[in-house]
Amino acid sequence: MSESTSRIDALPIRAELRGKSPYGAPQLDVPVRLNTNENPYPLPEPLVERIAERVREAARGLNRYPDRDAVELRTRLAAYLSRTGGHPVAPENVWAANGSNEVIQQLLQAFGGPGRTALGFEPSYSMHGLIARGTGTGWISGPRAGDFTLDPESAARTIAENRPDVVFVTTPNNPTGNAVPAETVLALYEAAQSVKPSMVIVDEAYVEFSHGDSLLPLLAGRPHLVISRTMSKAFGAAGLRLGYLAADPAVVDAVQLVRLPYHLSAITQATALAALEHTDTLLGYVEQLKAERDRLVTELRAAGYEVTASDANFVQFGIPAPGGEPREAHALWEGFLARGVLVRDNGVPGRLRVSAGTPTENDAFLDAARALIKEDEAGTA
Amino acid sequence: MSESTSRIDALPIRAELRGKSPYGAPQLDVPVRLNTNENPYPLPEPLVERIAERVREAARGLNRYPDRDAVELRTRLAAYLSRTGGHPVAPENVWAANGSNEVIQQLLQAFGGPGRTALGFEPSYSMHGLIARGTGTGWISGPRAGDFTLDPESAARTIAENRPDVVFVTTPNNPTGNAVPAETVLALYEAAQSVKPSMVIVDEAYVEFSHGDSLLPLLAGRPHLVISRTMSKAFGAAGLRLGYLAADPAVVDAVQLVRLPYHLSAITQATALAALEHTDTLLGYVEQLKAERDRLVTELRAAGYEVTASDANFVQFGIPAPGGEPREAHALWEGFLARGVLVRDNGVPGRLRVSAGTPTENDAFLDAARALIKEDEAGTA
Repeated sequence: MSESTSRIDALPIRAELRGKSPYGAPQLDVPVRLNTNENPYPLPEPLVERIAERVREAARGLNRYPDRDAVELRTRLAAYLSRTGGHPVAPENVWAANGSNEVIQQLLQAFGGPGRTALGFEPSYSMHGLIARGTGTGWISGPRAGDFTLDPESAARTIAENRPDVVFVTTPNNPTGNAVPAETVLALYEAAQSVKPSMVIVDEAYVEFSHGDSLLPLLAGRPHLVISRTMSKAFGAAGLRLGYLAADPAVVDAVQLVRLPYHLSAITQATALAALEHTDTLLGYVEQLKAERDRLVTELRAAGYEVTASDANFVQFGIPAPGGEPREAHALWEGFLARGVLVRDNGVPGRLRVSAGTPTENDAFLDAARALIKEDEAGTA
Repeated sequence: MSESTSRIDALPIRAELRGKSPYGAPQLDVPVRLNTNENPYPLPEPLVERIAERVREAARGLNRYPDRDAVELRTRLAAYLSRTGGHPVAPENVWAANGSNEVIQQLLQAFGGPGRTALGFEPSYSMHGLIARGTGTGWISGPRAGDFTLDPESAARTIAENRPDVVFVTTPNNPTGNAVPAETVLALYEAAQSVKPSMVIVDEAYVEFSHGDSLLPLLAGRPHLVISRTMSKAFGAAGLRLGYLAADPAVVDAVQLVRLPYHLSAITQATALAALEHTDTLLGYVEQLKAERDRLVTELRAAGYEVTASDANFVQFGIPAPGGEPREAHALWEGFLARGVLVRDNGVPGRLRVSAGTPTENDAFLDAARALIKEDEAGTA
């Protein structure tokens, strides 16, 4: 037990938090950091200047509370979704908060909470379960197939058996990287409505990197469907903390009952608006990252790794263990670290996750990957 | 029932949210807006430039997640508290979030929540009760005396009877304006420890405007005491959404178990750091506002209003009703609005709240106040 854990436990803290540690990837000082799915490309300098300009303007009115409803920002986000998502989205369909984590927290405060449950298909983005815990929502872990896909029939059966109030579908899924087909999401939505009306949250944090399309068009006629998005990945703005959702206007009204008033600062709104002005440049970086992601998949497979198909800006991989138990992944993680490359051990047995970095970073990662599998083959031969 | 309320109620929303409306003061386009306790002085231009400069720097690394623990910001906030609060505060005593609302939400997630209760002495800052509801914490409304002060004995009795897990003390209190003496806070802290160990949150959002001192020195030897602060008021940065707390390091560890990871953007951290560099200039505006606040008290009393003593940047007032029921305040609120002055009706019977504005804004308010009480005297004579 760490020093901080024992001193926390001396406080009258909630029972379920005792002995817990804060969520977060280890922050280590390593030359090549490919562990948190950040976009490796810094914002272009003209955008940096535009951010400074818009923030300067916002700072002149900083003594006043920000626009509580973030109307201008929601209007620009709606325009972005309409242009790229294959579905017309209006400002009243959109809500924004400090990262998609806060969006999800608000959704669970409105539709989950004490006496209610949420279900996700794991392994998936572990914050869904942690935010459920933080909002007093019961968490149900649903199954994935051995290849990390979602089987529509068994997933629908899990929903029917557990009657959750909220269902999470992450596509492309994190940390596995694979996308969920639209038909599967439709089947899950129908299953979630047939028992009782339940909310279905489709987390599309990585959708801009997908080979396929956004599921935004599914919103038509489905008032209990929510699409969650972020500017952290495709917009290269993890430091900005800007998440948003698209849904029926009633959902947007509902989260306003639980959102903290003035939750989104004037500075955040100004910065996000500046970034949205440079959408096309930023989406150009996305194309480069998709090509690099595909190269990682190809090269890892060529080197002998088992690789999950990826529609995200990261790739899940592991050393094959034909016919046996999955190989322990943490030694491999340490092997990368010893070679100056930080990847992520998300706790998926036998698998690690690597974010697509710059070509140079990916070369360094691939060199280490090739060396490590050779060592492994020599060691286990 | 509004259109939005009825469409929300068609969703599978939590039962206790049905029929509710979002929190927030009416945002009306009125020449003199003195309704949300904003600081009327825009940030000085050198600070605006410094914000643009620090944000430009932060934007260059915006593709990376922000410092999850906001160490530099907490270090500068600790230095500010040590210098002005009469008590040495270290970075590990400090935690920061998106507004003191989020600080309080995190505290209630850690120390309140389902099956637990929080108690506040009302009328007080209504978000305490609303955030309790949002976190599933039971809310207990404790009493104030007729003059809005806290009687230590009856308050301690209320704590002993209700055994809350969290006690809120707002000083200076909002919306009444009066401060709570240190001896009273000590008595409440003792009462809250004698039944079972409970957390006591002292909300000092307005303390820089007080005639007296911060209660920071009370932290010594009291591990269940938390002082909550904000940059919205004294630092003239309501648009920034930066709240913080000082407490035992164990409390800071505990909120990190429930905080959303990377909750505080790199842009927010950069802007707050810039503002802290200009502390002395901003505290100069505080002195001007204190003088204006005292003028409002004096002039309102001279005009015939009943006025609560104020240690904040706002003043609570009403038309005297000798021996009778408190006078209905909403008609008076409308009278101000008709004269182009927006004040706040916080629902305290017979009382309204006015924020200290610029001298010109306060003159306009006082002119309206004098005219309205004359009309009232004429009408009721």
